[in-house]
Amino acid sequence: MVTTDLEALAQRVSVAARSVARSSSLARDDALRMGAEQVLVDAPAILASNVADLEEAKAAGLGATALDRLRLDERRLASMAEALRSVAAAADPLGEVLEGSVRPNGLRVERVRVPLGVVGIIYENRPNVTSDAAGLCLKSGNAAFLRGSSSALRTNRAIVTALRRALEKADLPTDAITLVEDTSHATAVQFMRLRGLIDCLIPRGGPALISALLEHATVPYVLDGDGNCHVYVDAAADLEMAISIVANAKLQRPGVCNAAESLLVHRSIAARFLPRAAAALEGVELYGCERTRAILEGVEAATDEHFATEFLSLAMSVAVVDDLDGAIEHIARFGSGHSEAIVTADMVAADRFVREVDAAAVLVNASTRFIDGGELGLGAEVGISTQKLHARGPMGLRELTCAKWVVRGEGQVRE
Amino acid sequence: MVTTDLEALAQRVSVAARSVARSSSLARDDALRMGAEQVLVDAPAILASNVADLEEAKAAGLGATALDRLRLDERRLASMAEALRSVAAAADPLGEVLEGSVRPNGLRVERVRVPLGVVGIIYENRPNVTSDAAGLCLKSGNAAFLRGSSSALRTNRAIVTALRRALEKADLPTDAITLVEDTSHATAVQFMRLRGLIDCLIPRGGPALISALLEHATVPYVLDGDGNCHVYVDAAADLEMAISIVANAKLQRPGVCNAAESLLVHRSIAARFLPRAAAALEGVELYGCERTRAILEGVEAATDEHFATEFLSLAMSVAVVDDLDGAIEHIARFGSGHSEAIVTADMVAADRFVREVDAAAVLVNASTRFIDGGELGLGAEVGISTQKLHARGPMGLRELTCAKWVVRGEGQVRE
Repeated sequence: MVTTDLEALAQRVSVAARSVARSSSLARDDALRMGAEQVLVDAPAILASNVADLEEAKAAGLGATALDRLRLDERRLASMAEALRSVAAAADPLGEVLEGSVRPNGLRVERVRVPLGVVGIIYENRPNVTSDAAGLCLKSGNAAFLRGSSSALRTNRAIVTALRRALEKADLPTDAITLVEDTSHATAVQFMRLRGLIDCLIPRGGPALISALLEHATVPYVLDGDGNCHVYVDAAADLEMAISIVANAKLQRPGVCNAAESLLVHRSIAARFLPRAAAALEGVELYGCERTRAILEGVEAATDEHFATEFLSLAMSVAVVDDLDGAIEHIARFGSGHSEAIVTADMVAADRFVREVDAAAVLVNASTRFIDGGELGLGAEVGISTQKLHARGPMGLRELTCAKWVVRGEGQVRE
Repeated sequence: MVTTDLEALAQRVSVAARSVARSSSLARDDALRMGAEQVLVDAPAILASNVADLEEAKAAGLGATALDRLRLDERRLASMAEALRSVAAAADPLGEVLEGSVRPNGLRVERVRVPLGVVGIIYENRPNVTSDAAGLCLKSGNAAFLRGSSSALRTNRAIVTALRRALEKADLPTDAITLVEDTSHATAVQFMRLRGLIDCLIPRGGPALISALLEHATVPYVLDGDGNCHVYVDAAADLEMAISIVANAKLQRPGVCNAAESLLVHRSIAARFLPRAAAALEGVELYGCERTRAILEGVEAATDEHFATEFLSLAMSVAVVDDLDGAIEHIARFGSGHSEAIVTADMVAADRFVREVDAAAVLVNASTRFIDGGELGLGAEVGISTQKLHARGPMGLRELTCAKWVVRGEGQVRE
């Protein structure tokens, strides 16, 4: 029975997680460095598996973008290995004493950073997620329980085989990196319901995955949400700076979650700013409100749906707002709680925006593209959370840990 | 339609939450102090409502314990008021800069503590939860969206009326403390699915509530879990100390989640220790393993179910284990991840127990009863979390907040 198989597999991962949690960071870093080496040693096998996956995917009619995401080559393998080495070189997040005190009765109390245990990851067809996620989980003392897509199964299996060889060499349990090879939808749903066996599930996928998770999951999870990010150009904005930030936020890499999807402009500067913005955004399909369209000719009318859309492409919604309150209201209505920027020289406006906009990140006079783990100095990330509990914003090594209270006494009892 | 009503109500709470998030801590503390006063001023109305609730509950056949939990009197009202005053006097958790740095490109990055927004609480018939939870939510800048039990509806309504009067006097939106008056099961399920309108749901109730939540909730939640807490008496324990800790952990207040439910004893001291422990635990129903029963006459045989049970009463399971590993294994199998104690003079054993037992709290030579917000110096708590994400252990004001990244630049864009 599938249930029993998956549960049995999860039990083994769970046992491995306890062993990894007890291991030294020296052993885990060794395993990561040897994993980097092994991925390169196994390159022929990994690339051959990838060719087989690509052929099947092509035959199944997968689109060009998806095929590109699935494709590995020597260069991409080298980046995977480099990412593992760089995680090995990062500081160990474990053991940090988050706070400590001595209570009046003499109890010594500490809160200490410890691993989560088993981290489950459901992801789509990028094979680099396999090694990236496994590396971050191992570094933070967790076991990685991976459920990739069927289209990348052979590639993922070859990568996991390499990483497990490294675990073995480092004297760590190989089950600490485990791939679920049954990629059926039913198994994904079972995976989400392995309560007590998965300590944290991180889904990396589209709306269908998220809604399946909301409906079915009984395990704790952290959502890597959409980014419907706004840039608001205030009345007191330096317009040169605003143009540069809007263009960067939209154009520098349009397909990622921290790219801007919507431009809000204070009405007092709209007539001066919008034509220049449109010129800087040449090639971007704009959807504008009525006031925008009165200034910019040939712009399509924006619907609420446009304002709510994360385009992830060369498209952008544009609205002229009455004032800062209008911008804050618009973001409250349409934003997804990812990253929101204001461009202004007005300190009061900046402070109000920072305080009143409810998002994982708010930026003043900077591009939304800065909201990722590397740019914020957190190192590699497993995703960017738009939820408020546990992790908000880029999820790095720290977000793959939790805290444990440690209390030491000399026989104290409660009165 | 019920759906629409509840959603409309939630929308109003959501608007109020944004306003509370912008309010000063002076205003919120004023509201809390005035709430304390108002609860006493309204005492006649609250107590009359409580009498009506009690009569109906008695007629409906509610048991003596439940009736006692539901009952209010002058003294209990005074404690409610006192709790509100003490929350007002606590330090403001908001605005704390959790970390900050300047990036190489000059961006100034901070992570700042902010409110969650709307905190939903589903709870059973203790009316003091109404004011305690509302107070903690307000103090931490959140709106409290409360769904109590039908048996306490009149009492809860009277308490919320008093607190809303205080909000009004403090110039804060009254919807920041809102009671759902429809106490049907269907509405509870709808409440759990108000995604986008409830930022964090905290259930305080039994297994039926938890399983409804796991099945139906789409909003983020923090579970206030069971406490199947163990005391392990090691070979190197001071037996006097061990007796005192076991007795305290079991007897000082048996009905709470941090009371001990299971006693584990190293086999080398079992024959000396168990008879003395049994004497100290007089009146406690013991369920023992075979080795325990060979030492203690007349003890009922323990099943796996006994070992897995949170008795919350004068009952306890007892097992003799081979060694520290045996104790750690037993706790891994049966523990609920709440609070686990070892009694030992052996530093290596203590350190291994601290490291290898996976629980919200581990204690060395101290009673499990110390794991609560007050005893750990966190102030009042909304519950004790046995989950690993967001909050682990006592949930105080800090656990009712989240973080926001704030990035300030001078026009930086990403290369």
